[in-house]
Formats: sequence, C-alpha cells, structure tokens
Amino acid sequence: MSSSKHSPIFSHSIKVRYAETDQMGIVHHSVYPIYLEEARTELWNSLGYNYSLMEKEGYIVPVLEISIRYMKPAFYEDILSINIMSLRFESKLVFRYDYEIRRGEELLSTAYTKHVFLNREFKPIKPPRKIVDMVRKLVGT
Amino acid sequence: MSSSKHSPIFSHSIKVRYAETDQMGIVHHSVYPIYLEEARTELWNSLGYNYSLMEKEGYIVPVLEISIRYMKPAFYEDILSINIMSLRFESKLVFRYDYEIRRGEELLSTAYTKHVFLNREFKPIKPPRKIVDMVRKLVGT
Amino acid sequence: MSSSKHSPIFSHSIKVRYAETDQMGIVHHSVYPIYLEEARTELWNSLGYNYSLMEKEGYIVPVLEISIRYMKPAFYEDILSINIMSLRFESKLVFRYDYEIRRGEELLSTAYTKHVFLNREFKPIKPPRKIVDMVRKLVGT
Amino acid sequence: MSSSKHSPIFSHSIKVRYAETDQMGIVHHSVYPIYLEEARTELWNSLGYNYSLMEKEGYIVPVLEISIRYMKPAFYEDILSINIMSLRFESKLVFRYDYEIRRGEELLSTAYTKHVFLNREFKPIKPPRKIVDMVRKLVGT
Repeated sequence: MSSSKHSPIFSHSIKVRYAETDQMGIVHHSVYPIYLEEARTELWNSLGYNYSLMEKEGYIVPVLEISIRYMKPAFYEDILSINIMSLRFESKLVFRYDYEIRRGEELLSTAYTKHVFLNREFKPIKPPRKIVDMVRKLVGT
Repeated sequence: MSSSKHSPIFSHSIKVRYAETDQMGIVHHSVYPIYLEEARTELWNSLGYNYSLMEKEGYIVPVLEISIRYMKPAFYEDILSINIMSLRFESKLVFRYDYEIRRGEELLSTAYTKHVFLNREFKPIKPPRKIVDMVRKLVGT
Repeated sequence: MSSSKHSPIFSHSIKVRYAETDQMGIVHHSVYPIYLEEARTELWNSLGYNYSLMEKEGYIVPVLEISIRYMKPAFYEDILSINIMSLRFESKLVFRYDYEIRRGEELLSTAYTKHVFLNREFKPIKPPRKIVDMVRKLVGT
Repeated sequence: MSSSKHSPIFSHSIKVRYAETDQMGIVHHSVYPIYLEEARTELWNSLGYNYSLMEKEGYIVPVLEISIRYMKPAFYEDILSINIMSLRFESKLVFRYDYEIRRGEELLSTAYTKHVFLNREFKPIKPPRKIVDMVRKLVGT
C-alpha cells in the first residue's frame, strides 16, 4: 500500500566513469549533482521536451538549492539508478525534485533539488504553461 | 556585537576557471562542492596539518551530507571568498562545517557539509585525538 | 576497399551532459579525454574484461600521451559516437588507441592516446599475457 | 646561453585539488587541460586584458588542438608550476602555446595547444589588432 510512495516517477541508469572517482577509491561527492541533472534531462526527454529548447525559448532554470545525503559509496563501473521520486511546485515559482540513488536494490544516496524559472536577465518568472501542464500530467494531479 | 557571529573562522580565496562555467554563462552548481573542499584543505594546511597525511595514517573523511543554497550566480574570473563560518562536532562521530561564498561583500551562497572519520574498511571511528584538539583550538572552546 | 580502414573496431555512444558545456555554449575541451576513457572502459567490458579487475590484479594503466583535434563543436544533448579506430602496440610497453568522435556522420574530432602498464610502484611492466591476447584477437592479428 | 629557451614567458602556480585525483591516486589526465587554460587566463590578466572582455567584444577563442605528454604523476596538494614556454602565430589565423608542468624543478608534463579566433557564428576571423600587438610585445618580436 504505502509502498507506492517509494516508486520513482522516473528512473535513469548511469555507469560510473573512471574520471568520477577520487583517491579514496569512490565516486567524488561533487559528481552526484551531475547525475541528478542528467536524470532531469532524461525525464524531460521522456516527455518529448528538452531543456535546450527551453533555453532557446528564453527560459533558464538554475538550481536554487541542493541537498544530498551520502549513505554508501559508489564505485567505478557501478551501474546506478538515479530515481526521481517526486516533482512538485513548492510555490508558484519554486519547484522541487526528490531523488534516490541505488545500486540494484541498495540505497546509496537521497537528495533533493529546488529550481526556479528565470528569464534571460536572471529574473524569476512564472513557469511556462506547458511545463506546468507536463508536471501535472507526470505526477497525476 | 552580534556581527561577531558573521566572522569566518577561515577564509579562502579562489578565482573561477573557464571550465567551471556552463552554457548558462555561470559557474555550474556542481563546482561549489569542490570550492568548499578546497577551503577545508586550506584550513587544515593553515593549522600545519594536511589531509594527505590523514589518509596515510589510515583515516578517510568522506562527506556524509552536503547542502548548498545558490542565491546569486558566480561568473568566470570572479574572485570568490569561500568562508568557513563554523566547525563543530554534532555528535561523537559526525562533524559539520558551515560556509558562505561571497564575491566581495555580496553573498552568493550558503552551505554546510557533514563528515565522519572512517578507517580503511569504511567503518566509522572516533576522530583522532589531535584532530579533536585542533578543532577545539580553532573554535576556541 | 580502403574504406575498411575507416571502420571502427569499437563504437560507444554517449549523450552530452549539461555540466559538460561551458559559457561558449559548447562541450568544454577537457571533457573529450573523459569520453575517450569511457569508450576504452566499454571496449574492455565488451571483451568480458574490465579495468577494475586489472587494478585489483596489480596493474595500473595510465595515459602517457593524449592528442585531440577539435574540428567542430559538440553541444548539450548531442548523441556522440566515440569510435575506437585502432588499437596497437607501438613497442613492447606502449600501446596506442586512435579515435574519432562523430555526431551522426559528421566528424567532430580525432584523437589518440598512448598508455603503458605499470605495477603498483608506478614502474613499467610488460602487459599481462591475456591482455596481449585480447588485443590480438580484437584487431585480428 | 641555450638555457634561455627554457625560461617560461609566463608561469602560473596551482595547487592540486582533492576532486582532481582519481582512484589511481594521481591527478586525472583530463584535469591538465584545465590547468593549461587557467595559465592562459592568468597570462592575459597579467597583460591587463581578459578573456571575458574578449567574449564581450564578440570573439571566442576555442581550442583547435591539444597535445599532452604525461611523464610523471601529480598528487593531491602538490604545488605545480604551469609554465607557458612560448606563444606564437603558426599562421594568420592559428596560434600556439607551448607548456611545461613542473613540481619544483621536476618536469611532470609537456603540452601544447592551438587556438583560433572565431566570431559569434563560429567563423574563423583575423585576431584583433590589439591581441596581435600584445603577443608581439610579450614574445619580444
């Protein structure tokens, strides 16, 4: 029942690159934001949209906040699932993704990011209607 | 008076590299963890210690948690102050740094990281006595 | 006929990440070595071998030399083919890969890398027999 | 006498970051292009010019070619000298930098990069007069 809240709304698989390791022998913690970003790109692609297009239309969507918990290390050649667990508007302007990173069933990391739509002058603007609609459709509300 | 709480315990200056920008024309958010880490390295160096030595002595000190708020963007060739605002043990095993990133007086970002000492088998261990002493000395307690 | 020399011995597909772009709006040139390395990893995987295993067996295989020509830029979300065009021993110790990077048919970049097998003390050693055999098999000699 | 050819025209010092190491325990080879780029930035700054300004004036100056030889590894916390040994126009459009990377006196790496001035449409253009003058002044011809 309540397990439904543990199903990702989107899952993207990546394989750890050698260059992403550090001398501790694990994936450097600064690489995780890049994995999360790649998952967001793929989510938009899966919806028939892409971020390049968004930028061409005059929107930029920077990260406002990032928070990552590193529970277990990831290693070179690991296949990781970058799971987007939820996506929602926190306010009219700010939206938030929640993530899990897993190797098989093993939970390595949890994270969230917050974002805002800006125009080319870096001023916050309301998200474009079609994005709001896509998000609603995606999360089924 | 209360401004004393805003004085960093350590400040490290970096200059933004071209490679650290993205096509939005700003420093990519995944670079900030690297800036914070460089400030930690320099803090230890300023105390006559270094992290390389720590690893040789059998300790590794990974990041357990990172949280960053991005308030204003940073740009290529910006000179940024990576300010460590506090360093304290949250528990016997976990310690936490708080940071500010500024361009001149302008606050761009706030952040914190949490860390734990591990042995070579990735098991949590009590931090070495001399580190605890150094931290105490640093924060004046 | 002579076109056979233009067929890659191995091809690996990657998709450009946002973090890999710079403020020029193109993939930063320092990312190409990482793409080449990922293609080498995948080549070994396709042969049922992997580089992690090699390191566990006591070999490290650093890059001795890299040379890259950037003919046309690559962009965010591009799908690129990282083609390994040849792999051969230049001497008993040094081996060389040649590469092409293409977006569809369009040639963006050519490159080569040279490598050597080292033991854990960073001393050059003869490549392990099974690697030599794999390379021979791969290139059909 | 002949040693004059070994004097850099510009030298920039960097300190290796933890994130720049890989699981081999050395600086990952993809980081060297970033060090070279930082030295170029600092060279221009030392001449009272900067690359940001160049981009604002409508020029972009991408890397056409890079070649790096890795002779000895660099390690975390190493202080490295990124020495620009020469800078010259190879043709009306293409100019080339030669580099050495040293730790103290110890030579770790040699490299060169080639560049071209492009306009915003990525078309090659003649370098701006003041740049040509700066280069001439710098190399004393």
